[in-house]
Amino acid sequence: MRISVLSETDPNEGRVAATPETVKKLKGLGADVVVQKGAGIRSGILDADYEAAGATIEGTASKIAAKSDVILAVRRPTVAQIDGANVGAAVISIMDPYGNEAELAKIAGTKTSAFAMELMPRITRAQVMDVLSSQANLAGYRAVIDASAEYGRAFPMMMTAAGTVPAARVFIMGVGVAGLQAIATARRLGAIVTATDVRPATKEQVESLGAKFIAVEDDEFKQAETSGGYAKEMSKEYQAKQAELVASHIAKQDVVITTALIPGRPAPKLVTKAMVESMKPGSVLIDLAVERGGNVELAKAGEVVIHNGVKIVGHLNVAGRLAASASALYAKNLIAFLETLIDKEKKTLAINWDDELVKATGLTRDGAVVHDQFKGGSSAK
Amino acid sequence: MRISVLSETDPNEGRVAATPETVKKLKGLGADVVVQKGAGIRSGILDADYEAAGATIEGTASKIAAKSDVILAVRRPTVAQIDGANVGAAVISIMDPYGNEAELAKIAGTKTSAFAMELMPRITRAQVMDVLSSQANLAGYRAVIDASAEYGRAFPMMMTAAGTVPAARVFIMGVGVAGLQAIATARRLGAIVTATDVRPATKEQVESLGAKFIAVEDDEFKQAETSGGYAKEMSKEYQAKQAELVASHIAKQDVVITTALIPGRPAPKLVTKAMVESMKPGSVLIDLAVERGGNVELAKAGEVVIHNGVKIVGHLNVAGRLAASASALYAKNLIAFLETLIDKEKKTLAINWDDELVKATGLTRDGAVVHDQFKGGSSAK
Repeated sequence: MRISVLSETDPNEGRVAATPETVKKLKGLGADVVVQKGAGIRSGILDADYEAAGATIEGTASKIAAKSDVILAVRRPTVAQIDGANVGAAVISIMDPYGNEAELAKIAGTKTSAFAMELMPRITRAQVMDVLSSQANLAGYRAVIDASAEYGRAFPMMMTAAGTVPAARVFIMGVGVAGLQAIATARRLGAIVTATDVRPATKEQVESLGAKFIAVEDDEFKQAETSGGYAKEMSKEYQAKQAELVASHIAKQDVVITTALIPGRPAPKLVTKAMVESMKPGSVLIDLAVERGGNVELAKAGEVVIHNGVKIVGHLNVAGRLAASASALYAKNLIAFLETLIDKEKKTLAINWDDELVKATGLTRDGAVVHDQFKGGSSAK
Repeated sequence: MRISVLSETDPNEGRVAATPETVKKLKGLGADVVVQKGAGIRSGILDADYEAAGATIEGTASKIAAKSDVILAVRRPTVAQIDGANVGAAVISIMDPYGNEAELAKIAGTKTSAFAMELMPRITRAQVMDVLSSQANLAGYRAVIDASAEYGRAFPMMMTAAGTVPAARVFIMGVGVAGLQAIATARRLGAIVTATDVRPATKEQVESLGAKFIAVEDDEFKQAETSGGYAKEMSKEYQAKQAELVASHIAKQDVVITTALIPGRPAPKLVTKAMVESMKPGSVLIDLAVERGGNVELAKAGEVVIHNGVKIVGHLNVAGRLAASASALYAKNLIAFLETLIDKEKKTLAINWDDELVKATGLTRDGAVVHDQFKGGSSAK
């Protein structure tokens, strides 16, 4: 069984799909591991580190996939990158399938089995494979680091002989994995932190991290709060009141970090141009949803826009800005999933297409796109 | 009494010598305050903010100093910038006098009285005027933010479903004001922090911030530790043992921040090329002394050098990278000193040349360089 680890081709992608630690584990599963030359360099991993862990380094890009049973990558590889893989080989990465049906059809044409890590079901068994969580956690941390680097003042209150530097006011919009880590990190740095989310049940989590929840706390809110989990949508009247409260809150903030994503759909607009214009010069907005259209009206993917002295930061691939940590966790997510695809006695790939993890993440099989959501594009040569 | 606030000409200088808050206080002292157009913009202060505080905005650079009694700046102004000031006017800034005797002589030629804020004596009465401390404190904070932005991993330990991200190991060399704030900030972010200093008495301060002091703790050290304050130099034998310990410690660090400055002399070399090469790829060095020649052998002023995968960060004017906070504190330092130069009843400049603060900081008077340390260059036209 040959497992190949690709070098990423996107210049914004510093992550890698294996670490020396996971290479050792793959060797332990009985695999020959081949790593493409230079694959780990942007995560601080040298080819020699992979070799020390038992991998072989392949210097010719066109040869990396040859006769592979498993191909591991961070981003969806091109057909050229997986050329020569065995029929039925597993190609595992973040596949970004939505809107890319034509690319999926091309991969189907290679007769490999492509798996999209980001479609992993959110069940207990698959927590260790949950790339959305592992990467969002780092993105939430990094968003605060980026904000503190862009902001022209200190985050913590500082009592000095020359006077007091006030603590920064940081507002987190969207309290998922990224938002919770952003709250925790901003609190660590000594900021005054507030947060909001459309799910009233998140209030408790926000408060458990020492931040204040911003919401119109009327009867409707209180009922929704106790109903727990992903609550039903709030009334139009409530939404209007809440929007007004949030707008007036934003005007008083130094830093706003937005983290709201809806899988497979454009990101919701949370901060309008008028709200940006209500902020003081020198304030900073970090839009973690910018790759999905953005939560902030003026945000541009890959740019820092300055509007009336307010910085609107739209970095791409924010988890990848912590490439070494992000790779370490992503590689562990991958290997946890891969272990379920391998027959440990025979030391061969043995995909059980009835397993719910395989059903949820499997995109292509035997030359066809097989995932219910993406079947539209049929097999193409 | 006319007080003028200059706009800084150095492109790396985002600070400004007055804020709306200090303008109000200057007005309260009976002064007319004139601020050069755009002076505050890089600190997030608009001309309108100064006007609202009672200042007049001067758009023509050649007119800003005209008939001024006091000129406030961050960096030493050129003769052109102070042209037209009244004879005997006080020009107050960070004068950077060492090695710049020719420039001082030119300023003397304008018959203004130049004061160097960084020569303020470190006595209780002058603590509120201590620009070295106020700016070093912010530089120490910012050094950690810069390190966390350059480092490809998270600083805090993170326990996640996919495994644990280890905490970063951060080593602070030099435990003055900047070093102490760097320790505190790295601790806030969850790093494992160690520190060292040539003064054994700083061990207690390091430990009070929750960090570990790195030193060969033999009898000589223990004696020096209790003798307190700026202790006498340690023996050659001790220095050799300590150097060896530090070298082996650096090899295990993820981040090293150096802060060692000696007033009026080049910065001491603390980290050799061999030590840099002992660090893991992806490690980060921040050299806060780079403008004085650097503590790190490969550091370059104004650059991020990458050597064997190790980043050596040599940002200029690190306090100025937090321009808004740095300006707020600097402006307060300035006004506290300026108050001692003003007759509050007559509302005029009234410099008491016998005052120890004036003696320590005064560089020029009546056409001559008067400060003992810089008298070499005599008045030039």
